[in-house]
Amino acid sequence: MKASKSFRLHIGIFGRRNAGKSSILNALTSQEVSIVSEIAGTTTDPVEKPMELLPLGPVLFIDTAGIDDRGDLGEKRIQKTMQVFDRTELGLIISKTDEWGDFEETILKELKDRAIPVIVVFNKSDLVQAGNCLQRSFSGENIPVVETSATNGTGILDLRQAILNHAPDDFINRPGIVADLVGPGEAAILVVPIDKEAPKGRLILPQVQTIRDLLDNDSFCMVVKERELREAFNRLNKPPKLVVTDSQAFLKVAADTPPEIPLTSFSILFARYQGDLPEMVKGAMAIDKLKTGDKILIAEACSHHPIGEDIGTVKIPRWLTQYVGGKLEFVHHRGHDFPENLSEFKLVIHCGACMWNRREMLSRMMKARMAGVPLTNYGLTIAYSLGIFERALQPFPAALGVYQTTK
Amino acid sequence: MKASKSFRLHIGIFGRRNAGKSSILNALTSQEVSIVSEIAGTTTDPVEKPMELLPLGPVLFIDTAGIDDRGDLGEKRIQKTMQVFDRTELGLIISKTDEWGDFEETILKELKDRAIPVIVVFNKSDLVQAGNCLQRSFSGENIPVVETSATNGTGILDLRQAILNHAPDDFINRPGIVADLVGPGEAAILVVPIDKEAPKGRLILPQVQTIRDLLDNDSFCMVVKERELREAFNRLNKPPKLVVTDSQAFLKVAADTPPEIPLTSFSILFARYQGDLPEMVKGAMAIDKLKTGDKILIAEACSHHPIGEDIGTVKIPRWLTQYVGGKLEFVHHRGHDFPENLSEFKLVIHCGACMWNRREMLSRMMKARMAGVPLTNYGLTIAYSLGIFERALQPFPAALGVYQTTK
Repeated sequence: MKASKSFRLHIGIFGRRNAGKSSILNALTSQEVSIVSEIAGTTTDPVEKPMELLPLGPVLFIDTAGIDDRGDLGEKRIQKTMQVFDRTELGLIISKTDEWGDFEETILKELKDRAIPVIVVFNKSDLVQAGNCLQRSFSGENIPVVETSATNGTGILDLRQAILNHAPDDFINRPGIVADLVGPGEAAILVVPIDKEAPKGRLILPQVQTIRDLLDNDSFCMVVKERELREAFNRLNKPPKLVVTDSQAFLKVAADTPPEIPLTSFSILFARYQGDLPEMVKGAMAIDKLKTGDKILIAEACSHHPIGEDIGTVKIPRWLTQYVGGKLEFVHHRGHDFPENLSEFKLVIHCGACMWNRREMLSRMMKARMAGVPLTNYGLTIAYSLGIFERALQPFPAALGVYQTTK
Repeated sequence: MKASKSFRLHIGIFGRRNAGKSSILNALTSQEVSIVSEIAGTTTDPVEKPMELLPLGPVLFIDTAGIDDRGDLGEKRIQKTMQVFDRTELGLIISKTDEWGDFEETILKELKDRAIPVIVVFNKSDLVQAGNCLQRSFSGENIPVVETSATNGTGILDLRQAILNHAPDDFINRPGIVADLVGPGEAAILVVPIDKEAPKGRLILPQVQTIRDLLDNDSFCMVVKERELREAFNRLNKPPKLVVTDSQAFLKVAADTPPEIPLTSFSILFARYQGDLPEMVKGAMAIDKLKTGDKILIAEACSHHPIGEDIGTVKIPRWLTQYVGGKLEFVHHRGHDFPENLSEFKLVIHCGACMWNRREMLSRMMKARMAGVPLTNYGLTIAYSLGIFERALQPFPAALGVYQTTK
């Protein structure tokens, strides 16, 4: 899926000619696959570099190579700089601690005046000890400061995290839940089993959010238990665009849903909404590579959540042990507690994180990716275990492609 | 609607022959309309008295007139007493403070052993000062103690409140939300408008509870905005059993719903579920009797609830003022704060109280009734103001009857 330019988060990179803008950019993106193209500009024009910056997805770096502190800022240059400010959604000011001065303050003021979030990056921390020469504190202004060395990679993960933390909410929360799969004036069927684990008198949050997302987008839905699903189909004189089921009813719902009607689960919708579905598909497929003695991290967003707890502590461990045919080591983490060092794990299996914002889930996905550890969620693990992965991914061509090319 | 015996809360009344059981019973029920019948027993048999005890509704008092402290409790009497304990759901032990003794303790132990809630009633407080002679404290056992005088009425309202407070939850929560109007295997359409007042990404609680109630009872539903309602009807090849709308979309939904399909609102469902619908219908109709200068209490269960606040502080006052054609005095109360003295008000208009249990709403209805002040809720007020009261009450014969005979 190619993202249009307007869809990308625009990250403006500002700094003096020798501050290391290009090396920071290279370090940020060296682990990335899809450097799409480079739009050449004149020497004084800012250079736009569309890239995939995980875990954010498509971004557009605007490298203001031609705007620096040499000479006065003539009319033309000022105009070009202003244009960059106008389209920047997140600004990086790259400097050295002993060089921060009027130029950087001017950039900072321009960004702040526009309420654009700013990250101050002190580069080359291997050469110059940060704080030694700096006469200025940023803490009172609530501006994040990251120290990096593009040459040895120090602080690049911190910078990536800072970008994730300070990117505007509407970019982080960009993917919808379900409505793009249904369309205005069209209907979905939502299958909501009611068992002893369902909270008394309520629906669980992902179900409510899914209904709301459909209404927000001029779609509507039939809400039904798995037992009445056939009757619900009988009542409709035009098939629904999509059937969404709770993972636990997947097999019965798959049997009762005509094969030409797309079918998926709330968990899969939320893997996309809260995280990165293709990445989590790869994560689920890593189950095939598990072997006796492997260590698996099971992470739960909520500290107290009996439903997820049961899936995480009992059902998934039992199933994985059976699948691998040998003893596995399970480590459980709950709430915001998440291990710093993931490299000892062969797989991270996360709950749907329905109570979180997307930023926190993407942050965990990034940490797992940097450590080279696959990550998936409960629902995808269940779908994989039930052998209906391919059908459940049908509505998501990118994720399905990952599955079909990897399997 | 006649309640079957098993539906009634069974209240066992225990006490010595001279403790005043009958006078308490009379005082409790003297303001009630429908004393249905009296089932005569032998002199030693308990007497069952089915009654309407507002705000609880149908109860069965079991007056153990024949079981007292005279002589030993012979085999036959013990057996009959045990049978009363076995069907009692709430026990009242009526005594005088200077007479509490082994007999009362035995009754108390039998009830406690069965985990039956107990209220201790010290009667005739005009003659004997409670506490003066009593050597026993009930506070450590968490047993409510009420002092009454059946002759002058002192404490009868407290007793009524204590019965409401200590009746078992499943009796208090007995009415369903909606499923009895739809039926298993049948569908309802729920119309959920999405406007700026809808909470971001969610549905409001009564909507979620209504969906859940349908699923719990093997019904299902279509959830749709008012704009897509016609399309939703087009999709169904069999009409729904019921359409439920948010009050604010009432007129459009009424226009788009074929007249033969029953239509009501979430507010009206919740007037029944959380309170007493016929009583609240009477309350709404009291709007016609309002005149310039009248004082109206607007009560909101939640302390912070911008949606309800707007309806309660702006919309309803404006509409009532227009309707009456003169200035009215509005008094607002929020949260659990509710005036003790309601007699100065001509009408109480309450929010739907969706976040409360039914007990608290019934308790307020009782206070209003005792003060002779009509009470209704926001949704009924809106329905009345829109002139669609009769259609919206169609699914509820008892409430409709109240409207048709009163108007």
